[in-house]
Amino acid sequence: MRRATKLAIVLRTDLRMSAGKAAAQAAHAAVAAALTTLGTPGFAAWLDDGQPKVVLRVAGPDELDDVVAAAGRSGLPVQTIADAGRTQLDPGTVTCCAVGPGDSAEIDAVTGALSLY
Amino acid sequence: MRRATKLAIVLRTDLRMSAGKAAAQAAHAAVAAALTTLGTPGFAAWLDDGQPKVVLRVAGPDELDDVVAAAGRSGLPVQTIADAGRTQLDPGTVTCCAVGPGDSAEIDAVTGALSLY
Repeated sequence: MRRATKLAIVLRTDLRMSAGKAAAQAAHAAVAAALTTLGTPGFAAWLDDGQPKVVLRVAGPDELDDVVAAAGRSGLPVQTIADAGRTQLDPGTVTCCAVGPGDSAEIDAVTGALSLY
Repeated sequence: MRRATKLAIVLRTDLRMSAGKAAAQAAHAAVAAALTTLGTPGFAAWLDDGQPKVVLRVAGPDELDDVVAAAGRSGLPVQTIADAGRTQLDPGTVTCCAVGPGDSAEIDAVTGALSLY
């Protein structure tokens, strides 16, 4: 049996984004992850699984950097999202990252210690 | 000058989703909208604009249905997202829709009366 896949989206809590702002950042991250991996076997498998997504939290930029670095070391697709700064945040503020889509177990090895957002 | 584009994501407030759940639903909607319109001029223009997204609210399913119907009448791309029901909601609950990506003015004609989520 093929192994399960997912996409993890990791949002900063220290920015105190509104629920709508957080949702928009998560949407940016998910679209970036999908478009970047389009056409890869990992993307196809994830699409086939119904595009499972999980939204997780980190306390701040250092913890987010750690997740991005760990994902990179694991060879997982990783995208960071910098806010355009038109509304609540300073331009260029990195609000979140997407890890995957990819094998659930590999993604858990990077994000498994994080709590749900 | 080419006209501005956007993607509107419209979430139900009556489901009282957690911020993470709402973010995941918005991410589902955004990916669905992107993949469905991939390769169209509207998608290309939106990508070129930096994929602007706005997250809006409706009070419940009837108001969401009205938005979906109005978007359909306007010929705008529209996707609804039904939750898999693995966590907080009953399976099949329609949580949100995506309108666009498309011309901002056309999307505003459908969603312009809605408040930010």
